[in-house]
Amino acid sequence: MYGKLTGWDDTIVALATPNGVGAIGVIRLSGSKAIEIVNQHFSSKDLSKQSSHTIHVGLLKDGDKVLDEAVISLFKNPRSYTGEDVVEISCHGSSYILEQVINVMIRTGARLAKPGEFTLRAFLKGKLDLTQAEAVADLIASNTESSKNAALHNIRGGFSTVLKNLREQLIQFSSLIELELDFSQEDVEFADRTKLYVLIQEAERVVGLLLESFKLGNVIKNGVSVAIVGKPNAGKSTLLNALLKENRAIVSEIAGTTRDTIEEVLNIDGILFRLIDTAGIRESKDVIEVIGVEKSLEKMKTADLVLYLFDVEEMSKAELEAAILLVKEQNANFIAVGNKTDRLEEEQVSKKFFGDDILFISAKDGLHIDMLKQRLVEKVLQGSVQTESSVVTNIRHYEALQQVAGALADVLNGMNNQLPGDLLALDIRRCLHYLGEITGEITNEDQLDYIFSKFCIGK
Amino acid sequence: MYGKLTGWDDTIVALATPNGVGAIGVIRLSGSKAIEIVNQHFSSKDLSKQSSHTIHVGLLKDGDKVLDEAVISLFKNPRSYTGEDVVEISCHGSSYILEQVINVMIRTGARLAKPGEFTLRAFLKGKLDLTQAEAVADLIASNTESSKNAALHNIRGGFSTVLKNLREQLIQFSSLIELELDFSQEDVEFADRTKLYVLIQEAERVVGLLLESFKLGNVIKNGVSVAIVGKPNAGKSTLLNALLKENRAIVSEIAGTTRDTIEEVLNIDGILFRLIDTAGIRESKDVIEVIGVEKSLEKMKTADLVLYLFDVEEMSKAELEAAILLVKEQNANFIAVGNKTDRLEEEQVSKKFFGDDILFISAKDGLHIDMLKQRLVEKVLQGSVQTESSVVTNIRHYEALQQVAGALADVLNGMNNQLPGDLLALDIRRCLHYLGEITGEITNEDQLDYIFSKFCIGK
Repeated sequence: MYGKLTGWDDTIVALATPNGVGAIGVIRLSGSKAIEIVNQHFSSKDLSKQSSHTIHVGLLKDGDKVLDEAVISLFKNPRSYTGEDVVEISCHGSSYILEQVINVMIRTGARLAKPGEFTLRAFLKGKLDLTQAEAVADLIASNTESSKNAALHNIRGGFSTVLKNLREQLIQFSSLIELELDFSQEDVEFADRTKLYVLIQEAERVVGLLLESFKLGNVIKNGVSVAIVGKPNAGKSTLLNALLKENRAIVSEIAGTTRDTIEEVLNIDGILFRLIDTAGIRESKDVIEVIGVEKSLEKMKTADLVLYLFDVEEMSKAELEAAILLVKEQNANFIAVGNKTDRLEEEQVSKKFFGDDILFISAKDGLHIDMLKQRLVEKVLQGSVQTESSVVTNIRHYEALQQVAGALADVLNGMNNQLPGDLLALDIRRCLHYLGEITGEITNEDQLDYIFSKFCIGK
Repeated sequence: MYGKLTGWDDTIVALATPNGVGAIGVIRLSGSKAIEIVNQHFSSKDLSKQSSHTIHVGLLKDGDKVLDEAVISLFKNPRSYTGEDVVEISCHGSSYILEQVINVMIRTGARLAKPGEFTLRAFLKGKLDLTQAEAVADLIASNTESSKNAALHNIRGGFSTVLKNLREQLIQFSSLIELELDFSQEDVEFADRTKLYVLIQEAERVVGLLLESFKLGNVIKNGVSVAIVGKPNAGKSTLLNALLKENRAIVSEIAGTTRDTIEEVLNIDGILFRLIDTAGIRESKDVIEVIGVEKSLEKMKTADLVLYLFDVEEMSKAELEAAILLVKEQNANFIAVGNKTDRLEEEQVSKKFFGDDILFISAKDGLHIDMLKQRLVEKVLQGSVQTESSVVTNIRHYEALQQVAGALADVLNGMNNQLPGDLLALDIRRCLHYLGEITGEITNEDQLDYIFSKFCIGK
């Protein structure tokens, strides 16, 4: 898709801002001819004689025809996003005008950019490594504080630094082992095997932490799906509304009002929760109906987390415990929530459900909704790595790290079995290979195609 | 809505690019504190010490929290769109990030801009007159070459110049008349009444042309609605497809296939045609059915132009002439088009319909479709003012010009009736008032509210 990875000398153009109605739209060009191409349509001054990082206002023309009054920003090689000459043209936000301008640029020497091609060029020019480039797409797609922070951390090279340190340690190990090989006839052992063993163990620990962080990373990137289940009229819609603090679901006293599955998005402490309110169809005779409806079972299994809601007034302790057992069978990650505490005395409630791990709320009065939110966040962070360091949010990185972990295990295993240095060196090189794949020191076109084709055009 | 028109010292902020997914989004601030507000969040350098029209890349922070890596463009008072200090912040195109940045700017001294408020400020600072400001909104909404050109012409002061010349002539007239008044006791006549009469007549001619141009202006701005009518199976859908060169309508040999009215947009020579294919319901016994269906009558009356299509094989000359009479009753602006010429010999066709003003086509073969397009354009431009000069595209301008025309007629009438100079001066002042309303020399808040509230936010 992206052709030869070296020898880029064409100039690309694309709309960098979203389609639609806005005051302005920005068109971006990158390449050795970017300034030359725009310059021939800009009548106010000679852009080729202007400094980098300067702004120029004037008429953009196609021959005699005025295209627009535009604002031109110049970024000269290498001080640009791509490392090439970059020109940004800020036009009036009419799709007609933007299309015309792009067409003129294409007609006079530029080529329409492929998705992610600006960032690909930044990568190929060494402005970004691959993890940073991938973080650009993540940043654009970010919709919570945590996903934004993870992406920004990675754009700024946070993840790369961790991998770089790892790589340096392994190269150190590798060079010591390989030095030994040169002198292998003499049966010298330069490398202190115990120290090397510790080094590999440390590397394994770091990779292990990164692998573990992927669970959290996935949550950060994709959010947490929460199935809200419970008997009809347990107050699921009211709870949903209390959580969202606005009326999206229809609330009614009539059991089984909620006709369809509703998915609402809730941002708590920078984590995105996708709340699924399951359909409250009327009870059947089936035992399953203790906890709600058949449909709920499916939702419970596939959700990241189950919120089991019940009416403290209606529910008996025995019935509750049976229900909780059933929920647990579907999904071990659940919170039991007793609703409608406003209908009973506090003492009554605590007596009735003594010994069970239940959070009591009143969705109607908004009582303890904050505690529930806190509990949701705790459930997500529970067991996940909580460090200042990098979080793996990318499945490609996760898979490569798994390969690294496998190779490291082989090294340790080999050392335990007194394998000779040349065999150990092979496994170390395997580690380095997969680490290089993550940062892009080792790439192939297919991989780049895969990564950049998921970008939006103009980035 | 816009409060006091003078004494603006607050700083406004808004997203200048459309909502949605894009590589970047641009946030714009304008006001005396624009640079100061952004500067406190920009860690890389002191923006207050940078020159106008320069670009600065760095981290945008909210306290310790990194908001984004951003590109800052500086436009210093008066060299900016609004004439105030303007800062544009180009962020990664995530709605989450853009919202966060705007919120931080609001929290630290800026205020969310009202629709069109940037342009309003440009007007109040004298960077644009009112016709230019209005043209900005027209330019953003432009979707054809002609609407873009009309808007650009007006942004660049084309219409303002015409009005300014008119105004100067009238002021000249007015001053001569008023000079007379000062010496009225002496019964002196300074102004050559014949010359004055010619001057007012010329003004009346110019205003008349501008009023006439509104018909074209309206076409340029809103497009031309064309009702395609004809008997079922005359080939309306095939014609529509031939015009659009793509298959939007379902074409079928079965009469009455086209179930609903379809409106398609066609751009011919920069003019937007909105093609309305009327429902081809089966013929009834009604005489109206000669030309199609009842529904067509309504469409014909409201359309700017009617395209009456018939099958040259099926239609007799007598039947055609009756049909054309009926069409004419609904709308005098029509084109009669004979379709399916591929089914008859050319000679046969010309013999059969000799003497009638008909364009013969074959929609199926695409024959003479270009001629039809040309005819459509001719019909629109026919009778409309075709000058190099300004075209009135704005109903507000049109209404004010009608007032000017009325006042000018009163002046001429007054001169014919030998009215004294002081009465003539009153009418002239009325002309000047309405001209001033167009350009914004005379404004009131309600009028500004009305004009700018139709803008998009961020412009």
